[in-house]
Amino acid sequence: MKIAILGVGTVGTSVINILKKNRHMIAARAGEHIEPVIGVVKDLKKPRECDIELTDDIDSVIDRDDIDVYVELMGGIEEPYEIISKILDKKKAVVTANKALLAYHRYALQEKAGDTSFGYEASVGGGIPIIKALREGLSANKIEKIVGILNGTSNYILTNMMQSGIKFEEALKQAQDLGYAEADPTFDIEGYDAAHKLLILASIAYGVHGNPEDILIKGIEKISSEDIFFAKEFDYEIKLLAIAKKTDNKAELRVHPALVSKEKMISKVDGVMNAISIYGDALGESMYYGAGAGGDATASSVIADLVDIARENKNPMLGYKELSEIQKIELLPTSSIRTKYYLRVKVEDKVGVLAKITNLMSDNKLSIDTFLQKPRNKNENHTTLFFITHTSLEADVKRVMSLLEKEDFVDGRPFMIRIED
Amino acid sequence: MKIAILGVGTVGTSVINILKKNRHMIAARAGEHIEPVIGVVKDLKKPRECDIELTDDIDSVIDRDDIDVYVELMGGIEEPYEIISKILDKKKAVVTANKALLAYHRYALQEKAGDTSFGYEASVGGGIPIIKALREGLSANKIEKIVGILNGTSNYILTNMMQSGIKFEEALKQAQDLGYAEADPTFDIEGYDAAHKLLILASIAYGVHGNPEDILIKGIEKISSEDIFFAKEFDYEIKLLAIAKKTDNKAELRVHPALVSKEKMISKVDGVMNAISIYGDALGESMYYGAGAGGDATASSVIADLVDIARENKNPMLGYKELSEIQKIELLPTSSIRTKYYLRVKVEDKVGVLAKITNLMSDNKLSIDTFLQKPRNKNENHTTLFFITHTSLEADVKRVMSLLEKEDFVDGRPFMIRIED
Ligand SMILES: NC(=O)c1ccc[n+]([C@@H]2O[C@H](COP(=O)([O-])OP(=O)(O)OC[C@H]3O[C@@H](n4cnc5c(N)ncnc54)[C@H](OP(=O)(O)O)[C@@H]3O)[C@@H](O)[C@H]2O)c1
Ligand SMILES: NC(=O)c1ccc[n+]([C@@H]2O[C@H](COP(=O)([O-])OP(=O)(O)OC[C@H]3O[C@@H](n4cnc5c(N)ncnc54)[C@H](OP(=O)(O)O)[C@@H]3O)[C@@H](O)[C@H]2O)c1
Repeated sequence: MKIAILGVGTVGTSVINILKKNRHMIAARAGEHIEPVIGVVKDLKKPRECDIELTDDIDSVIDRDDIDVYVELMGGIEEPYEIISKILDKKKAVVTANKALLAYHRYALQEKAGDTSFGYEASVGGGIPIIKALREGLSANKIEKIVGILNGTSNYILTNMMQSGIKFEEALKQAQDLGYAEADPTFDIEGYDAAHKLLILASIAYGVHGNPEDILIKGIEKISSEDIFFAKEFDYEIKLLAIAKKTDNKAELRVHPALVSKEKMISKVDGVMNAISIYGDALGESMYYGAGAGGDATASSVIADLVDIARENKNPMLGYKELSEIQKIELLPTSSIRTKYYLRVKVEDKVGVLAKITNLMSDNKLSIDTFLQKPRNKNENHTTLFFITHTSLEADVKRVMSLLEKEDFVDGRPFMIRIED
Repeated sequence: MKIAILGVGTVGTSVINILKKNRHMIAARAGEHIEPVIGVVKDLKKPRECDIELTDDIDSVIDRDDIDVYVELMGGIEEPYEIISKILDKKKAVVTANKALLAYHRYALQEKAGDTSFGYEASVGGGIPIIKALREGLSANKIEKIVGILNGTSNYILTNMMQSGIKFEEALKQAQDLGYAEADPTFDIEGYDAAHKLLILASIAYGVHGNPEDILIKGIEKISSEDIFFAKEFDYEIKLLAIAKKTDNKAELRVHPALVSKEKMISKVDGVMNAISIYGDALGESMYYGAGAGGDATASSVIADLVDIARENKNPMLGYKELSEIQKIELLPTSSIRTKYYLRVKVEDKVGVLAKITNLMSDNKLSIDTFLQKPRNKNENHTTLFFITHTSLEADVKRVMSLLEKEDFVDGRPFMIRIED
């Protein structure tokens, strides 16, 4: 099986090297040798850590008749979409690791692909075979919920904040120094990367359409030392979670930091690791854990897709062979989300403030489950109040927060973290 | 797709009920309806919790031409082997959850099956799609090691002993009362069930042949309160582990209780849950966690196999399309195992005893990493010594233990637990 590698960067280089290193074993498993015959790059002069013929003329590679599978590892959205569309028009199989592409174009690509193989295991959870688990391993199950730690950078920062007690900025800097965060970390820490991956999983689980703009996406950049203090006090971890669940026949999709009880298996996932918990109606909870990024780990999934193609496996790209048979399911509006909430409010430390806040909450349908007032430093005339609500409507919480912000006795903006129960 | 259910017990009943409950969704995923048309049982008079035509004449079912897939859920070894052989002779697809059958006959069944589909996802890890993960998701990887908690009964008992401080006998009784252990629990607590599953995983990882008799199998029945005390003191959990790894181009397979550092993800798996950590050369560690038993969880895997057959997926049964290409790998003799060991020795509490033991150890190539003497109760003239060795040869540890047993100052038999590092 001859393959072309479109993009010989971190992942592409690993794919080429592992196919060489484990060549015989992979052939024994796949039934044929998998040969990377040409790589495409932008800059032919850059030094490469792998041994392959290179070109910067992508069209000449797409025009070749001897290539069986094209592996897209360039990144981007519209450019790879056009390139892959051309390849699928020629009925050539495609493998990609590109979650951004799929977050926007997965349904269009599924249609273009038709019966042609289209692998994207590497797009979610790096080396964790999560697409396979969800699309094939759990095919008997109605999926009740998916809860994922899908971004290693954010998880590394949060773990470090919890365990070393350092602030967000410092944890980010350490992650950057260690190569776990990019110079511009926006995409990872603000939740977009996790959201792209969540949309892919939600398509397999629910057949739900939607772009990143349509779902709730919040990042970890506003988590403070006080939130860490509270989490420790009440036996929570703080994780950036990507959640998909079915609520009233709508799909609820959201990415945000969450307080997670230390008893949940997913709360135990530390550092750059990823994990996805899936709740199915037959199986109950199952969890999949591993390296969510890195050249070799991601290449592991890319090559698994190639082996699947060599074995002539025919799984429907997004999990459904006949979409007509399943109900069209719509996205739940973000204001209709219901969960428990943690609220942090900085207030003037004077008599009557707490009563005013609790009245305001109950007037707006928030009922309080837990309350903590942080021991105040001497010489300060402000104190921080922490609340956990019972299950409430996102819209009510948002209203309470903006009402609180307007009060004189409240200093700055109240802050909220959703709780994963 | 018409299927026959051979054995309508715990798992068979769940398979029938889930196929009915999730009928449309499963059809949308599989591309066709999966219809259980006939069930085979021993006793037609027993009440059943599912709706299917039943017979006790298995031959009449095997002779039918309209059945596409036979699902074996009877249990046993030789009887299902003969039945499945007949079915495969007729080139009809088979799905089974029967790990005992596969522990003995997997290679013979692979040969008989040839190109006919043979699914056995449910045989290891219940509902966890671990066969799929290892055989397909990790196909790019040389497997360095597999470490599994493959028996929920044992894990439930050990978790309970660690968390509630109760003794083995009491924990076993509680497990039986809750239905987590059978009236005769031998098979689970002595490690045989886990060993059957380990042999299956090791075939996919290494292509290694071997029966349960050929590998090291130890149970949890001798774990004492003192071992629990030590584990807590030194931040270990005690787990019944099934381990397969490659050592010097031999496959090392063993099932035994092990001390596992609390930092390892697998140490966090509590109660009846199962989990399998796999270390691959490309991916590093990944872990798969979920319900290892129970009718519905196991049925989830059985039905995943049926969907795979409907989708016409063609994965080689034991993971290799061309066995000739991989090296024949042999089992490592159990005496050649090398790991770290925990030793518990009850001795007379008098001067010179410790020196004698440490001399005896060093004369026999055991070097000590950690030593603890338990605070002695007043009025006792015996005390318990705990040692952790550096990495040592199993044969050396066994020799030291039998030498110690012969010493006057040693009371009873020294006890050993292997350490998973
Ligand atoms: N890195 C990971 O851990 C990881 C994990 C999961 C998924 N992914 C996904 O995998 C994909 C690749 O990631 P990566 O980290 O390997 O990226 P990378 O290191 O930046 O490599 C990208 C490669 O594509 C080439 N390229 C980019 N645009 C091109 C164009 N227009 N024409 C020809 N070649 C072009 C680049 O050429 P030059 O070398 O000449 O610049 C480079 O070789 C992305 O979609 C990413 O989201 C990555
Ligand atoms: N239970 C689990 O959680 C689990 C998990 C993983 C794997 N498994 C495996 O799945 C298989 C089935 O387990 P199970 O718990 O469902 O067993 P079970 O409840 O004992 O059911 C066995 C069924 O097979 C029938 N049967 C047995 N021998 C037969 C024969 N000679 N002819 C016709 N019918 C026969 C029995 O008939 P009657 O009902 O008339 O007695 C019964 O319906 C076993 O291989 C087991 O190891 C089970």
